[in-house]
Amino acid sequence: MSEQLERLNRLPLRGNLRGLEPYGAPQLDVPILLNVNENTHGLPETVHQAIVSAVSAAAAGLNRYPDREFTELRTALSRYLEHGLTAENIWAANGSNEVLQQILQAFGGPGRTLLSFPPTYSMYPLLASGTDTEYVAVPRGADFTISPEAVAAAVAEAAANVVVLCSPNNPTGTALGLDVVEAAYEAGEASNAIVIVDEAYAEFAHAGTPSALTLLPGRERLIVSRTMSKAFALAGARVGYLAAAPQIADALRLVRLPYHLSAITQATALAALEHAGALLANVEDIKTQRDRIVDGLAELGLKPAPSDSNFVFFGGLDDPHAVWQGLLETGVLIRDVGIPGHLRVTAGTEAETTAFLDGIKALMSSRVS
Amino acid sequence: MSEQLERLNRLPLRGNLRGLEPYGAPQLDVPILLNVNENTHGLPETVHQAIVSAVSAAAAGLNRYPDREFTELRTALSRYLEHGLTAENIWAANGSNEVLQQILQAFGGPGRTLLSFPPTYSMYPLLASGTDTEYVAVPRGADFTISPEAVAAAVAEAAANVVVLCSPNNPTGTALGLDVVEAAYEAGEASNAIVIVDEAYAEFAHAGTPSALTLLPGRERLIVSRTMSKAFALAGARVGYLAAAPQIADALRLVRLPYHLSAITQATALAALEHAGALLANVEDIKTQRDRIVDGLAELGLKPAPSDSNFVFFGGLDDPHAVWQGLLETGVLIRDVGIPGHLRVTAGTEAETTAFLDGIKALMSSRVS
Repeated sequence: MSEQLERLNRLPLRGNLRGLEPYGAPQLDVPILLNVNENTHGLPETVHQAIVSAVSAAAAGLNRYPDREFTELRTALSRYLEHGLTAENIWAANGSNEVLQQILQAFGGPGRTLLSFPPTYSMYPLLASGTDTEYVAVPRGADFTISPEAVAAAVAEAAANVVVLCSPNNPTGTALGLDVVEAAYEAGEASNAIVIVDEAYAEFAHAGTPSALTLLPGRERLIVSRTMSKAFALAGARVGYLAAAPQIADALRLVRLPYHLSAITQATALAALEHAGALLANVEDIKTQRDRIVDGLAELGLKPAPSDSNFVFFGGLDDPHAVWQGLLETGVLIRDVGIPGHLRVTAGTEAETTAFLDGIKALMSSRVS
Repeated sequence: MSEQLERLNRLPLRGNLRGLEPYGAPQLDVPILLNVNENTHGLPETVHQAIVSAVSAAAAGLNRYPDREFTELRTALSRYLEHGLTAENIWAANGSNEVLQQILQAFGGPGRTLLSFPPTYSMYPLLASGTDTEYVAVPRGADFTISPEAVAAAVAEAAANVVVLCSPNNPTGTALGLDVVEAAYEAGEASNAIVIVDEAYAEFAHAGTPSALTLLPGRERLIVSRTMSKAFALAGARVGYLAAAPQIADALRLVRLPYHLSAITQATALAALEHAGALLANVEDIKTQRDRIVDGLAELGLKPAPSDSNFVFFGGLDDPHAVWQGLLETGVLIRDVGIPGHLRVTAGTEAETTAFLDGIKALMSSRVS
C-alpha cells in the first residue's frame, strides 16, 4: 500500500469510500485534446469581451452575496430553451453534476434507488454513492441501444425512485427516441419516479431530433438537464441547468447550499446567453467535423456509432489501447472509456480533426501491412 | 396549505425534507445592509482591476475544463495562511458551506453524527440533514461560552464522528480559546472524530488571538476552515477553503464533483490573494467600527458580547423585534437570529455604523421616555 493510501486509511472515511480512487480523465499535456468532449472551438472574441464586461460590472459588488435566486439567469435560460418555459421552470448549479447531485439529495438518498443504463455517463454511480443512493445498472444490448419495452421493464422491476436517461448518450453518442422517455415516465408512475433526461449534448443533435423538453407539459416528475459546458463552450465556467415543473425547482431550493451560484458565474453565463447565436454557429462547424469523423472511420472499416453529440464512439478495434497510445504519440489524446474494442473521440477544429483522421489512418494501415 | 406547498408535496421528496422551508436571511431592498455579515467596505479599485484582468485571461480558455486540482490557488492560499503550510494542506470549494458539505460526505453520513454547540452557525444542522448525518446539539450556557470540560464531555458522550467549533462563533462573535479545540480533539480520539474549527471570521479577531492553524502539526483529524467571503470581501465569488493534513484533502478528492471550482472562480480568488494587503487594510477599519458598536451599545446600557468578528451580538433588549423593525424603518437592516432578548449587527462603513448607532440610540431613548 502506498504511503498516501496508508495515511488516507487512518482517517475515519465512510465505508463506501474506502479503497476508491478519485474520478477523472487523465490531464495530459498534449497538443490536441480530443478526450473530454470539450468544445474545441474556443470563445469568439465578441463573447469573450462580453463576459469580461459583465464580470467587471459584477465584480464591483463582490463584497455582497449574490442573488440567491439568480432570477436574471433563470429568465435568460428559459428564453434560450423556448418551449413555453419561464424562469420558474429553470434551476441551475455549478455544472450539471451539481444539478444531478441536488436532484439526488432531494429525491434519492438512503433506501432509494437511481436507475440507469450503462454504458452511460460514468458520473451517475459516483453521484449515487455520494448521496447514499443505491445505483441500479441495467446494461444496454450489444449495439448499445435501449428499447422502450426494456426501459419500462427495468423501471418497474427496480421500482426506481430516480431514473436517468442520457440523450445523446455519453459515451456512445446516440440520441434516444422520445418513446423511450415516455415509456420510462409511464412505468415510473407506480413508484412515483423522478425521470431525468440528461441532454448535455442536445445542441449537437441532427436537425429534427426532438428534445425531451417537448414532453414537459403535464409531466411533473420529468426533468431535462442541460449544460453550458458543451455548445456554449463554457466548460471552465461550470454552469449546468434544468427545465422542469416549478415544484422541482422548489424541491431543489430545500437542498441547495445558500448562494451556491456565484455572482461572476451568473454574469458569465448571462453574457454567453446574450451571444448564443455566435456560439451556436460554432456548433454547426463542430457537427460538420463530427460527421467527417464518422465517415472517415467508416471508410477505414471501423464501426462508428451514429452520433448526435460532439464526439464519436467507434468499435471494430482489435487493440484499442494500442490505437490510443499510437495517437498519443502523434500528439492526439482521445479517450479509452474501458469498453472492449472501442474508443471515443471528440470532434475538433478542422485541423485537429484532420490530424486525428490522418493519425488513425496511418495506424490502421501500418497494422494491416 | 398553499398551492406551492401542495404541488411540492406531490413530489417524492425524501422524508427529512417534507415541510422544510429553504434557508435564507430575508433579501430586502434597504439602503444600509448590516444583516448577513458581509464586508461592507467593497473592493478597492486596484483589486477590482486585478480581478477583471485575471478573469479576462481565464475567459480565453473557458471552453476547456478548469484545473481540477486548482494548484495555483492552493499554493497562494497556503502562502497567505503561513504556519508552514503548503499546497497539499489546502482544499477549497464554492463557499465554506461546500467545504463543510464535502467533509460530511467523506466523514459523516448515515449512522454518523455531527456535534456542535448552539447557538452557532445555522447551516450546520442543514448540512447534516443534506448528508443524512445525525446532528447532535449541545447548547451553550447562559453566557454563550463553552468550557474545555463541557466540550470534552459532549464529544465523549456523543462518540461524535465530526465536531464543528465555530471560532469566532456566529452569531455570538466571540473566539474560542485553543484549549477548547485541544479538549475536543483529545476527547475525539476514542471515536476517531474529525474536529473542524470554522474560522470564517478569523481575520477580524483582536490582535494576539491565536488561530487553530497553530494546532495543526501532529493532529491529522483537525481541520481549520476559512472563507474569502468576509475579510477578502468576496461573498459574491463563493470561495471557502480549509487547511489540514494532506490526507484530508485526499479524502475530499473522493467526494468532490469533478472540476467543482470554475476557472473564473480560481482566477478571481488568485487576484484577490495577490492584493491581500489592500483588503486586510479594510479589515482594520471594520474592526474599528466593530469596536465603536460594542462601546456605543454598552453606553446605551445594552449587553454586547465581546466580538472577534465583523459583527456584534447584543442582549439586554426587552423587545428585539421592535428594535429590528424600528431600525428597518430608518433604512438599517440588521439580523434577528431568533435568540430571546438579542440581535446581531454587522459592522459597516463609518457612515453606516453611525447610522446604526444613531438609530438604536433614538429607539432606546424613545422607549425609556
